[in-house]
Amino acid sequence: MTPLANLQNHQIRLAERPVGVPTRANWQFTAEAVAEPAEGGVLVKTLALSLDPAMRGWMNEGKSYIAPVGIGEVMRAGGVGVVVASQNPKFAVGDTVSAGLGVQEYLSIAAGDIARSGLVKIDLRLGSLTQWLNVLGMPGMTGYFGLMDVGQPKAGETVVVSGAAGAVGQTVGQLAKIKGCRVVGIAGGQAKCDWVVKELGFDACIDYKAGPSAVKDGLKAHAPNGVDIYFDNVGGEILDTVLTRINRKARIIICGAISQYNNTTAVQGPKNYLSLLVNRARMEGIVVFDYADRYPVAVAEMAAYLKDGRMKSKEDIVQGLEHFPEALLKLFSGENFGKLVLQVAKG
Amino acid sequence: MTPLANLQNHQIRLAERPVGVPTRANWQFTAEAVAEPAEGGVLVKTLALSLDPAMRGWMNEGKSYIAPVGIGEVMRAGGVGVVVASQNPKFAVGDTVSAGLGVQEYLSIAAGDIARSGLVKIDLRLGSLTQWLNVLGMPGMTGYFGLMDVGQPKAGETVVVSGAAGAVGQTVGQLAKIKGCRVVGIAGGQAKCDWVVKELGFDACIDYKAGPSAVKDGLKAHAPNGVDIYFDNVGGEILDTVLTRINRKARIIICGAISQYNNTTAVQGPKNYLSLLVNRARMEGIVVFDYADRYPVAVAEMAAYLKDGRMKSKEDIVQGLEHFPEALLKLFSGENFGKLVLQVAKG
Repeated sequence: MTPLANLQNHQIRLAERPVGVPTRANWQFTAEAVAEPAEGGVLVKTLALSLDPAMRGWMNEGKSYIAPVGIGEVMRAGGVGVVVASQNPKFAVGDTVSAGLGVQEYLSIAAGDIARSGLVKIDLRLGSLTQWLNVLGMPGMTGYFGLMDVGQPKAGETVVVSGAAGAVGQTVGQLAKIKGCRVVGIAGGQAKCDWVVKELGFDACIDYKAGPSAVKDGLKAHAPNGVDIYFDNVGGEILDTVLTRINRKARIIICGAISQYNNTTAVQGPKNYLSLLVNRARMEGIVVFDYADRYPVAVAEMAAYLKDGRMKSKEDIVQGLEHFPEALLKLFSGENFGKLVLQVAKG
Repeated sequence: MTPLANLQNHQIRLAERPVGVPTRANWQFTAEAVAEPAEGGVLVKTLALSLDPAMRGWMNEGKSYIAPVGIGEVMRAGGVGVVVASQNPKFAVGDTVSAGLGVQEYLSIAAGDIARSGLVKIDLRLGSLTQWLNVLGMPGMTGYFGLMDVGQPKAGETVVVSGAAGAVGQTVGQLAKIKGCRVVGIAGGQAKCDWVVKELGFDACIDYKAGPSAVKDGLKAHAPNGVDIYFDNVGGEILDTVLTRINRKARIIICGAISQYNNTTAVQGPKNYLSLLVNRARMEGIVVFDYADRYPVAVAEMAAYLKDGRMKSKEDIVQGLEHFPEALLKLFSGENFGKLVLQVAKG
């Protein structure tokens, strides 16, 4: 192994705030020497990073559920890696870990920053490295707590989830099936729809790209008794269409609005929101960090489903740190098929 | 007293569906002989009718929480009246009652229609005739269950209510004060604002007509710790502005959207709805009829507040059935000051 002092840490930093779709010019590519950990510290080598729609929000200025990434800072990213040096008795060289690693090859975490970085050991017997970024990671936790805590599904209810082939969507749909619900996905393209129905066991999936009334017609056909829970990852027109089909006391989980993230004009508000009144329904936001103390419970439950085959996962893996700018855009074009992961190094 | 058979029942019927603001041409003025009640039936003479923003919705075609008024039908309205003939042992001539009387001078209710009409005796010792259309009637019940059941206020929280001087708003604000909350109203004009603060005891009131940033600036000044509960009667820009000031786990009660009811274009959706996500907040609709079995409990509680002076009410009374078309419009111009009531006859 190369001595640490000789290692270069390649990084991708936010150079400027994007307007609309991010471009390569918004990023700065830097390299610096790897810092040896001091007393209590840990040095992690990045293996894979999670690319998430939420990243687009972190690039914007202004108040949100988390501070924006500062100009000149390494882009924020959750990831999995391996401990390559440790001055901390809780972490040994060779341990596989998960943390907020950032879009870079190495992260040296000082003793006082370990909690904030979210550094935890992960058990590869429960799931693969990339599953720890998917169903056992933030997207899986988001799907789990959004569906279970906010949605509160009851067996026999109809659950609709947009971004159905994405990381959160695949978790939500499979979990809802396990809980006894009828599940209708909404995804872009026949291949994704086929996959969530044939591989994941959704009852149906609507290809929103199939035509202007595809979602409306699809809901009539596949959710004939109306929608009890809608897990929304996309916002925009699809949210508005689902609002016309909700049942009394429906729950709409607002997890994201990927259709709106690259807008250069105002977000499109749901013009059918008065359906909430007519149907005594509820629209509620979820931020996964609120459930951090319960992640282990959810991980245990989901790992059991992975093990007994009731839950499957799919990751779309892009190779190479330098491809981060283009890889991220796949989320917004819908080009990714499964949880989008950037592989930075081989274990 | 004139023999029943000689009485004319003047009525106002929906002649055609309005586009935008209703006009006199949308109504038809008819008269027919009063029908003597048959076995089990009751004849009620209308004394006063409740004019409500919801009426505008009932005039539209299409699915809602209640069927639209049909073309040619007497316009739907809740009201209070007096029993003038009865073949039903539960109702005696002279009883004061509340029911869905419609915009007309008399309603003859057949035995089989009594439950559906909502006919109940009212006790004028608990509140005046017009208070039974206000704080003890549908608006009061809407405010009570919307605030208490959907909003779930906790002492010390900040409650904002739009349409603050209206029937629902005055109930919500006073009730929230009684429950120990800080209460900020939003109303149109200084006179209404002065009244809700000085007479009803709201902590502050924002005159949304005072300027384009009046609501934003007013919330900063009067809800400096953010908004925990927003009771929305108006929708539109005000809802969007409040969404920028909500706290974590805020509850937004969607009771109405009077700013949008006469739109000839699509409803303006709340473009800041992603604040629900950022703040893990909830937006939920309420329809008062769902709480019918608990009205007596709420009436008893509110009547006690009226009696001990902790709750006050204000009605804006327009005289004469024939003025219904213009009176209704006062709701949409914001011209009414207090619960809008149409007095049809003297007791």
